[in-house]
Amino acid sequence: MSTTLPCRNPLDDARRVFVRGTLHPEIAVPFAELALKEGPFRLDLTAGRHAHAAPSPMPRTWLARQQVRKTQREWALSGVVTPEMEYVAIRESLGGPGRITPEFVRDEVARGAAIIPANLNHPELEPMAIGRAFRVKVNANIGTSGEVSDLGLEVEKMIDAVRHGADTVMDLSTGRNLHATREAILRASPVPIGTVPLYEALLRAGGKAENLTWEIFAETLLDHARQGVDYVTIHAGLRRAHLPLAAKRVTGVVSRGGAILARWCAAHDAENFLYARFAEVCEILRTYDVAVSLGDGLRPGCTADANDAAQFAELDTLGELAKIAAEHGVQTMIEGPGHVPMHKIAENLTRHAAACGEAPLYTLGPLVTDSAPGFDHITGAIGGAMIAWMGASMLCVVTPKEHLGLPDRDDVRQGVTAFRVAAHAADLAKGLASAQARDDALSRARYAFRWNEQIALGLDPLTAQAYRGDAGDDHHCTMCGEAFCSMRGFRSVAEAVGA
Amino acid sequence: MSTTLPCRNPLDDARRVFVRGTLHPEIAVPFAELALKEGPFRLDLTAGRHAHAAPSPMPRTWLARQQVRKTQREWALSGVVTPEMEYVAIRESLGGPGRITPEFVRDEVARGAAIIPANLNHPELEPMAIGRAFRVKVNANIGTSGEVSDLGLEVEKMIDAVRHGADTVMDLSTGRNLHATREAILRASPVPIGTVPLYEALLRAGGKAENLTWEIFAETLLDHARQGVDYVTIHAGLRRAHLPLAAKRVTGVVSRGGAILARWCAAHDAENFLYARFAEVCEILRTYDVAVSLGDGLRPGCTADANDAAQFAELDTLGELAKIAAEHGVQTMIEGPGHVPMHKIAENLTRHAAACGEAPLYTLGPLVTDSAPGFDHITGAIGGAMIAWMGASMLCVVTPKEHLGLPDRDDVRQGVTAFRVAAHAADLAKGLASAQARDDALSRARYAFRWNEQIALGLDPLTAQAYRGDAGDDHHCTMCGEAFCSMRGFRSVAEAVGA
Repeated sequence: MSTTLPCRNPLDDARRVFVRGTLHPEIAVPFAELALKEGPFRLDLTAGRHAHAAPSPMPRTWLARQQVRKTQREWALSGVVTPEMEYVAIRESLGGPGRITPEFVRDEVARGAAIIPANLNHPELEPMAIGRAFRVKVNANIGTSGEVSDLGLEVEKMIDAVRHGADTVMDLSTGRNLHATREAILRASPVPIGTVPLYEALLRAGGKAENLTWEIFAETLLDHARQGVDYVTIHAGLRRAHLPLAAKRVTGVVSRGGAILARWCAAHDAENFLYARFAEVCEILRTYDVAVSLGDGLRPGCTADANDAAQFAELDTLGELAKIAAEHGVQTMIEGPGHVPMHKIAENLTRHAAACGEAPLYTLGPLVTDSAPGFDHITGAIGGAMIAWMGASMLCVVTPKEHLGLPDRDDVRQGVTAFRVAAHAADLAKGLASAQARDDALSRARYAFRWNEQIALGLDPLTAQAYRGDAGDDHHCTMCGEAFCSMRGFRSVAEAVGA
Repeated sequence: MSTTLPCRNPLDDARRVFVRGTLHPEIAVPFAELALKEGPFRLDLTAGRHAHAAPSPMPRTWLARQQVRKTQREWALSGVVTPEMEYVAIRESLGGPGRITPEFVRDEVARGAAIIPANLNHPELEPMAIGRAFRVKVNANIGTSGEVSDLGLEVEKMIDAVRHGADTVMDLSTGRNLHATREAILRASPVPIGTVPLYEALLRAGGKAENLTWEIFAETLLDHARQGVDYVTIHAGLRRAHLPLAAKRVTGVVSRGGAILARWCAAHDAENFLYARFAEVCEILRTYDVAVSLGDGLRPGCTADANDAAQFAELDTLGELAKIAAEHGVQTMIEGPGHVPMHKIAENLTRHAAACGEAPLYTLGPLVTDSAPGFDHITGAIGGAMIAWMGASMLCVVTPKEHLGLPDRDDVRQGVTAFRVAAHAADLAKGLASAQARDDALSRARYAFRWNEQIALGLDPLTAQAYRGDAGDDHHCTMCGEAFCSMRGFRSVAEAVGA
């Protein structure tokens, strides 16, 4: 694109509306309200303070005042609607009436069909839910690597990601100053932050997988939990017995965590310590209400390995672990593939349901082909849209730089938008009324040449504005030119023949 | 992306292999052969002379020497394998053995399940086929509009498009010098060129739809056919009786051709003259073997209008017209939607099969949501991948600038690559062995850190190379860094536990 981006996003200028809780009047959920010609149109504001420039309207004081310490799942099971649940209900229903009531949210969380990642020590959070009954969510990965490490840049990436619509952010840093980087991100983040504590544990073990111990891991996990991390990926499903299955693959193990644990198991000829001590993992998580994301260390790294014995053996193990997490009151989601060609996506949902029941599925893509390095935000958006329509609850962003290098800010932005598009397409296909309402409002604006409305309603207004540039006046665009504009041309016909 | 593109595409440096015909030894089909560590790997070269820098190895003299003038479809029905059919067979089978023999191609064309758009007056053509049994094809639109008109630029866009993998190109020009623009494009194009003669007819009618006549249209069509255009879109399926159905829609008629004919029908209160005189249209097309693409003037322009009465009424009419075209020996494909949410895509295939049998389906997207202006190459790639997997034979590229302005060269490139990705993903899901072989070769190269091979095998090597840049040495990349590289980490484990 040759034109430069304007500096204002129309959403920044939209009116802010705060909807107060009924059960918990101290909460106030922010929305952006566009002043369309047809009337006001409300949009969810996932960017929190980075969009509405106000202090967090979600004081997390209620939980702190309770005499007992329980997770959202435990509160839900005991019949209590927490402020977090009511917040989610208002947010998902855009503050209007409908199916998604606070009681509905409580029921979803109680059944384990949805999670609200909300660490007690993350007061900056504006709560959201991940579950099939809700809007499809998008996670963006950020983080330093040993070779590219800049704390300020990571915070900027996080803000960029949430401003572009990321619903959660994972800090996958493996560079220097891990504690400080995570602290800066958490304190600036209105969205749940996820981590993979194993990465830091490996560094604490001197970078050698064989030197890892349960004690090093547990200490690292406890540090993350205390700091306020909302969910953690735990690769407890990769068992010693799975390794020969993975060794036969075209691309072996492509999960960083999976490869570390595979090396540990092989070096010690022992069972994965995260599997063996999973109940202890759960006890640490429960204390701070950290949700667990059961990692798929054996996700396929190429289409040839999709849906193979290694992948499904691990998935069955994740189902076992989900039951243990439930017994400990820990909120749980399940990570999914990976590289999967389109015709093999549906089987992933069937196997997931059989092994893990209603636990939310959180997928990386899936990438529907291996042959597009440089375009994996697109291969992932294709697979992501399909699997979310079929039931996945959150999609992990894949950037155009996947397989090639560490993404920069622009790569993260491009990836987040591609996956917001995929998630929205899935919401539409699932029949979500608010998604269809947005499509319809945008299309009416398009047909009536209300350009500013069309752009403001788009999933990435700045990019749309830059493409539009100053092309054409208010009544057509340069794509067809005035004489060939179908929408102009048909208007008189519609009036003549219309009902 | 911040790095600049290198100027050489690895495919340009790959060895050229020419496979000669057996039935027609004068033909020689070009391929690129990559010298991988595992051995040579052959790729189709769709860019013709713009990739292999040799004069066309497809002398179209055989047809000229025949005593009778027949279309490919008529030759096929009379049991003759033309040079074009053998060329297609070699191309689709990558010059190797397999299911796709010249006789197989003849049978597909005879049944109307595939077309080989190959105007007798387009000697620069290197023939290709569009049909469900073959690789999914991609069409790129180029063309001037009344506001942006530069002949040289359009030829450059065409070359760019074919170098990025477009299998056909449509010249949708509506600006100045239409004949000269089309001539320059045709004479430089190794791929089939499609047009919409109605656009030029409208200009010849002074830009007023009501002034159009059958005579003006027929003369324009004849000019296109004589010049060498390989296929034309004819919006004969939009009938007077359909207009009240379209008038009820959220976005009415969004096809340029459809809107022109709707205005004509309304102004004259008469049946669409293209419907009424379709047999005469076919006679002009038959003379030069121009294939017909039955246009969907009533394709839905928003998800709310998808699969509605107007769309399916027109589709049924297209089925009627396809039968008439078949009676005239004219090769036929059917155009499809449009904006369609994911859950409504499958019904399009069912209705297409019921109305049009095996005639190839050529779709614009479908775009799976309206809410992503600036990202419709992605909404279209999602829907395109799905519908091609389900049976569509060719996808029309949608660029990021769709709905916003006339695409420039970079927009066309981005769009073409997004749709090449979608088409390849569909080929994989359809079980095409050559597509899986490419994924597998790339993934083995990836796992073995053979970066140059991974990049050369990718669908857009220049972009992948630019993302990779100088990031990391040969044994990992900056994405994870050396210590966290899963593929490095698992290698020793695989050796230890592997079979």
